[in-house]
Amino acid sequence: MIKARVIGAFGYGGIGIIELLSMHKEVKIVSLCDVEFIGKRVSDVYPHLRGYCDIVVCEFKNEIKKEADITFCATPDKVGMGYAEDIIASGSKLIDYSGDFRFDDLETYKEYATRLGLSTEHKASELLDKSVYGLTELNREKIKKALIVGNPGCFAVSCILGLYPLFKNDFIDKSKTICDCKTGVSGAGKKPSPQFHFPNRYENMNSYRLTGHQHVMEIEKTLSDVASKDVKVVFTPQVVPVCRGIMSTLYVNLLKEIEEKELIELYKETYKDSKFVKIAEDFIPDNNLTRQTNDCYIKPTLDKRAGIVRIISHIDNLMKGQSGSALQNMNVMFGIDESLGLNIVNKQP
Amino acid sequence: MIKARVIGAFGYGGIGIIELLSMHKEVKIVSLCDVEFIGKRVSDVYPHLRGYCDIVVCEFKNEIKKEADITFCATPDKVGMGYAEDIIASGSKLIDYSGDFRFDDLETYKEYATRLGLSTEHKASELLDKSVYGLTELNREKIKKALIVGNPGCFAVSCILGLYPLFKNDFIDKSKTICDCKTGVSGAGKKPSPQFHFPNRYENMNSYRLTGHQHVMEIEKTLSDVASKDVKVVFTPQVVPVCRGIMSTLYVNLLKEIEEKELIELYKETYKDSKFVKIAEDFIPDNNLTRQTNDCYIKPTLDKRAGIVRIISHIDNLMKGQSGSALQNMNVMFGIDESLGLNIVNKQP
Amino acid sequence: MIKARVIGAFGYGGIGIIELLSMHKEVKIVSLCDVEFIGKRVSDVYPHLRGYCDIVVCEFKNEIKKEADITFCATPDKVGMGYAEDIIASGSKLIDYSGDFRFDDLETYKEYATRLGLSTEHKASELLDKSVYGLTELNREKIKKALIVGNPGCFAVSCILGLYPLFKNDFIDKSKTICDCKTGVSGAGKKPSPQFHFPNRYENMNSYRLTGHQHVMEIEKTLSDVASKDVKVVFTPQVVPVCRGIMSTLYVNLLKEIEEKELIELYKETYKDSKFVKIAEDFIPDNNLTRQTNDCYIKPTLDKRAGIVRIISHIDNLMKGQSGSALQNMNVMFGIDESLGLNIVNKQP
Amino acid sequence: MIKARVIGAFGYGGIGIIELLSMHKEVKIVSLCDVEFIGKRVSDVYPHLRGYCDIVVCEFKNEIKKEADITFCATPDKVGMGYAEDIIASGSKLIDYSGDFRFDDLETYKEYATRLGLSTEHKASELLDKSVYGLTELNREKIKKALIVGNPGCFAVSCILGLYPLFKNDFIDKSKTICDCKTGVSGAGKKPSPQFHFPNRYENMNSYRLTGHQHVMEIEKTLSDVASKDVKVVFTPQVVPVCRGIMSTLYVNLLKEIEEKELIELYKETYKDSKFVKIAEDFIPDNNLTRQTNDCYIKPTLDKRAGIVRIISHIDNLMKGQSGSALQNMNVMFGIDESLGLNIVNKQP
Repeated sequence: MIKARVIGAFGYGGIGIIELLSMHKEVKIVSLCDVEFIGKRVSDVYPHLRGYCDIVVCEFKNEIKKEADITFCATPDKVGMGYAEDIIASGSKLIDYSGDFRFDDLETYKEYATRLGLSTEHKASELLDKSVYGLTELNREKIKKALIVGNPGCFAVSCILGLYPLFKNDFIDKSKTICDCKTGVSGAGKKPSPQFHFPNRYENMNSYRLTGHQHVMEIEKTLSDVASKDVKVVFTPQVVPVCRGIMSTLYVNLLKEIEEKELIELYKETYKDSKFVKIAEDFIPDNNLTRQTNDCYIKPTLDKRAGIVRIISHIDNLMKGQSGSALQNMNVMFGIDESLGLNIVNKQP
Repeated sequence: MIKARVIGAFGYGGIGIIELLSMHKEVKIVSLCDVEFIGKRVSDVYPHLRGYCDIVVCEFKNEIKKEADITFCATPDKVGMGYAEDIIASGSKLIDYSGDFRFDDLETYKEYATRLGLSTEHKASELLDKSVYGLTELNREKIKKALIVGNPGCFAVSCILGLYPLFKNDFIDKSKTICDCKTGVSGAGKKPSPQFHFPNRYENMNSYRLTGHQHVMEIEKTLSDVASKDVKVVFTPQVVPVCRGIMSTLYVNLLKEIEEKELIELYKETYKDSKFVKIAEDFIPDNNLTRQTNDCYIKPTLDKRAGIVRIISHIDNLMKGQSGSALQNMNVMFGIDESLGLNIVNKQP
Repeated sequence: MIKARVIGAFGYGGIGIIELLSMHKEVKIVSLCDVEFIGKRVSDVYPHLRGYCDIVVCEFKNEIKKEADITFCATPDKVGMGYAEDIIASGSKLIDYSGDFRFDDLETYKEYATRLGLSTEHKASELLDKSVYGLTELNREKIKKALIVGNPGCFAVSCILGLYPLFKNDFIDKSKTICDCKTGVSGAGKKPSPQFHFPNRYENMNSYRLTGHQHVMEIEKTLSDVASKDVKVVFTPQVVPVCRGIMSTLYVNLLKEIEEKELIELYKETYKDSKFVKIAEDFIPDNNLTRQTNDCYIKPTLDKRAGIVRIISHIDNLMKGQSGSALQNMNVMFGIDESLGLNIVNKQP
Repeated sequence: MIKARVIGAFGYGGIGIIELLSMHKEVKIVSLCDVEFIGKRVSDVYPHLRGYCDIVVCEFKNEIKKEADITFCATPDKVGMGYAEDIIASGSKLIDYSGDFRFDDLETYKEYATRLGLSTEHKASELLDKSVYGLTELNREKIKKALIVGNPGCFAVSCILGLYPLFKNDFIDKSKTICDCKTGVSGAGKKPSPQFHFPNRYENMNSYRLTGHQHVMEIEKTLSDVASKDVKVVFTPQVVPVCRGIMSTLYVNLLKEIEEKELIELYKETYKDSKFVKIAEDFIPDNNLTRQTNDCYIKPTLDKRAGIVRIISHIDNLMKGQSGSALQNMNVMFGIDESLGLNIVNKQP
C-alpha cells in the first residue's frame, strides 16, 4: 500500500484528492494537515467522508514525522515550497498543486512570480531541477522518475491538451493563439466572496483578469518548448454558473490547407495511448461528459472559409484540472496502472 | 414630491428600495447612508443604477440634516432604534425593516429579543406606541396615520397572508399550525458565507434554525390577535437554490367540514380590496409568477380525507417580503395610490 | 458473476442502474432492451458509457432468449407486468421500478390503480404473491427469498424511512401525518416538458398533484401495516430547481412527552444494522450529502411547545430513491454484501 | 396612442413585446394572433399578464381586420413574409423578428436562405426594398422612415455593436474576426427539448452549430458594408446555464499599434448618442447588468503582446437581442423618444 499525506486538506483540491484516495485500492491515507480545524476529524467538517476517511487533522510539523510515500500539497503558491525540503528529506515524493514546481529552472519561476506580483524568491530552488511539469500525457516518462511533480493549472490542462498536437506540426501559425476559456465557479476555490455568492452568480457570467491569468505562462512555456519557438497566447478567462467544468475554445491560424479528417487523425494518433483524452469525432462534447471524471474531451474543427483551426476542449477543473491529474501522476510515479482509481462512470444527469 | 432617505443603502433591502424609488413618479431620493462605501456614488458600487440614482453615500450624522419626508431603515435589528429619535425629530416618518418596530409594546419586544438572544433594551421604547406592524393588507387604516412602520419579515408576510382568513373564523383548530417554508438564498442577505457560496449551493437544499426563527414571533403575535387566543406555530425554514422567492405550505386542522368552494370564497372575499393578494382558484401558482413583483399568490386547498386545510402561499421575499411592502406602506402613509410604483409586469422567463 | 438484463435502458432509471452495474465487481450486464434506439449501442446515445458498457440495445422479444439471473424493469406502470411472466419463466429474478409489484395482493393493487386512474387489471396477478415491497431496510429477510421485488417510489423511500421508527411505537398520533416533500427535477423523468424547460425552471418552485400522488398509497399501506391501524397521510409534492434529491419534512403529533435524546436513540437503534440510513444527531443534513449516494440522512427533532415530532429525511431520488435501492435489493436477493457497488464517496462540491 | 398588433404571441419574443407594450404609455395593444391557444385570453396562458393584458388570441385572418399602426411578427423565418403584404396593405408598419426582412435585396436573402437550408423563395420580395435592418444604433435615420424593419438576431446585435467602431477604422485587419459567443438558454426559444431539459442543462455547457449559425450572415453583411470590403467571421455559438444573456468575446488583429485609451475613446465617441450602449471603462461588465434591460455593455481591451483587440460585449438576448430592440425600433419609427418604455432599472440580485 502507498502511504499518502495530504497538506491543505480542506480546500477543494485537498478534499478532492482525499475522496479519490479513499476509494483507491493501493493507497492508505496516513496523515492530513491544514492550518484550520486542527484536532478535528476531517469527516466532522465534511460529513460525506464519515466511514471513509476519519483521520484527525494535524499541523504539518507533527505530521511530517509519520512515514509517507507520497505527499500532496494542495496548497496555494508559495506554501508547498516551504514544506518541500522536509517532505523530500522524510523520504516522501511530492505532488504540489501550485505554480511552485511547474517550472524546473529558477529563471522561469522568477518570470512567473513577477507576472503574478509574487516575490521571486523560491524557498526550495535547489529542488527545482528534480521537479517535472505534471501534465501526464506530455511528460509521462519523466514523471515516472520524478521526485517532485508540479501539478498543472486547470486552464492550462485544457488548453495544452487541446493545442499540443498542432504545435508539434508545421501547418499552423504559432505566433498568435487565442484561448477563450470558460470555467465553473469551483475554479475560484472554496472561499466565499461577493461575486460567487449564489444570488450574484446563479444567472451571471463575466470575464476577469483580462490583463493576465497565472496559467498563461505554463501554456506559453509548454507550447514554446514543443514548437521550439516563442509562443504568445491571448487568454480570456470567463466564469459561468456551473460548479465544475472548463470549456476552452482555441483558435489557431492555418498556414496551409488541411482536411478535417487529417486533423482528427492527428489528434487520435497523438493521444492513442492516453486513455483519458477522448477525441470527439462524431459528436459535440459537453460539460456533462467530463463532470466528475478525469477525461478530457477534444473536438477539433476547421473553418476553411477563414483559414482557422478551432479546437474545443472540455475537462472537469477539479478532476483532470486538479485532483484527478494529481492521482494520475501518483499512479505513474509509483509504476501502477495510470487509471487506477480513475475509471469512473459518472452519473447522468 | 416625497423626499426619501435610505439608511443601509447597500444591503439587498437598501438597493431594493432604491431601485423602486428611482422609478416612482412621486418620490425623489435625497440621501443615502451606510457604514461602508462612504463618499462613493451608489452607482459606482452598483453600476445598474447609473443614470437612475447617482447619489453619494454619507454617514447618518451628516445626512440627517437634509430634509426628508420618509426614511427607510434597511438595517438589521438594533440599528433603526438608534436612529429613530433623530429621524422623527427631523420631521421624517420612518419605515424600519427589522424587528425593532414590529411590536408596539415593550413587553412583546422584550420577549422577541429574548427569543433571538438579543439585548432586551429598546433604545427608542418611547416611540413604540407610535409604530404599526406594516403588513398593509391587515393594518391599512393604522398605517395611514402611522409615524413609524415596522416592515414585516419575509416569511411572516407569506404565512400571515396565507393564514389570516382562517384565523378570523371558527372552523379550524387554532392551537397548532404548521408552516413549512422554503426560501430563496437572497433571504439570507448579501454577505457571502460558505453555505451560500455558489458551488455549495447550486444543487443544495436544507433546513436550518430548527429551534426557532426570528419571524415566528410576529406570526404568532399577529394570528393570536386576530384569533383572540394563544396561537402556536411549528415553523420550518428551508433554503432552496433559487435567488428570490418564498413558498410557504401551511397546514391547519379542520374542526368542521367545509367545501373547497367556500374556502376559496372566504379568501377572495377577505382580499377583495387588496390588489397584490391573488387567489389562485383554477391553477397552481409558482415562483415565476411572483418573481420581482409585489404579489402574493395564495392557493387554498382541502384534504378532506385527513381533515386538513392546506394553504400554499408564494411571494418574492425581496419585494412583498421586503422592499415592495415598504414602498406599499409608504404609499399608504402619504395617502397616494397603494400600488404606485408597484404595478409591475414581470418578465417571463 | 451475476448476469443482468435491463429493460427500459434509456430512462433515468435504466441509465442509473447501468452506471451502477458497470462498476459492480460481481455483475456482468448481458442485455439491454428499450423501445427506442434499437440497434444502437447504449454508449452511442450516452457517450459517458463508452468503454464501460457498449452493448447494442434490442427489443425484449429477442433479449429474453439470453440467459440472465436478474432483470431490472426500469419501466413505467403497466409495462413490467407484461414482461414478468416471460422473465420469471426464463429463470431470471425481477426487480420492477413501477407500482406493478409494490403490493402483494390484487385488491390493494386495484385500489392503487384506481387512485391513479389506471386500469385495475393486472396482467401478472398470479405473480403478486411472489413479490416483495423493496424497501430493503424494512423487508430485508423477505427480499432475500423474493423472486420479484417491487422497487419503492422515491418519495415513499424518504417518507417511510423517516416515519417507520415512530409508527412502531405508541407515543404518536398515527391518524394524521403530514409529509411535505421537495424533489429535484430528475424525479419527473427525462422527457422534456414546458415546466422543466430550463428557462422556466431554473428560478422556479411549485407544488403539484395536490389531490394525490402515486406514492401516497405505498406510504399509507406500509405504515398501516407497521402500526396495525389505518394511517392517513397528507402529502404535498413540491419541485425545486435541483437535479437530484428529495427533502421530506414530516410532522406527527405527539401523544405523550418524550425527550429529543430518546427520539434520536430510537432512530439509531432502529437503523443500527442499516448502513445507508444515517441519523444526523449533531448537524443538519443537506442535499449535498446524499447526492449520487445511496444514503438516507434523517434528522429527528421535537417541537415541544407545539407537541410535534418533526423529521427531516434526505435522499437522492435517483439512487436510494431508485437505482441505488434496486442494486441494494439485487445484492440482498443474491446473498452478497448489501453495500457492494454502493460504497460511494460522493464529490464535494 | 399607437395601436399595436402582435403575431406569434406565445413565443418568448411575443410575450416579451407584450410585456413591454403593456407598460408603454403611448401604446395600446389591439390584437394578438397565434396558431395555438386561439380563443383563450393571453393571460390565462401567462397568468403574470392578468390585469395588464387580457386580450383573447385570434387567428391572423380575423385580426388583420382590426386597425393597427404597428405589427410585430414575433415569428420564425418564412412566416412574417407570408403576412407582410396584408399587414402593409392594412395600413400598419411591420417589425419582423426573423431573417425575412434583414436583407433589403433578394440576392442577399437567397444566399442567407441557402446557408440555412431554407427555400430561397421570398413571398414578399417586392417589399424588401422597403425594409431596413433594425439595429437602431447603426440605422436610426433609415428606421425613422421605414415601413418594415427586420429586427436583428440576438448574437448579431452583440457582435455588431462590439465590432462596428473598429470596422469604421483602418487600424485593424478586417479579413478575419473571431466571435466567441456564449448565450443563455432562452435564446433557443420556449420549445422543450432534451438538451434544455433542466436536469441535462443546469450544470452543462457546450458549443453547437459549429459549421454555421444563421446570425453569421448578418454580421458579415453589416460589417462588410461598414468596411467596404469582404469580411469573414469565425463564429462559435456556445450555450451556458443562464436563462437570459449573451456574452460575446470578439478578437480582431491589429494592423498598427494603438493605446487602450484611444480605443476606449473611439467607442465612447461612436456611441455618444446611443443611450443603450454603455462603454465599461473602469470595470468589467457582467450578465447581471444587462439582465432584463435594453442595454449593451461593451468592454474594449488591448492585448499588446499579441497585437490583438479584444472586445467583450454583453446584452440580454430577449431584450436588446429581441423585444427591447423591437420596441426601440418602434419608438424610432413613430418619432417618439427612443427609450420610452425601456428606461428600466433592473433588480439586483
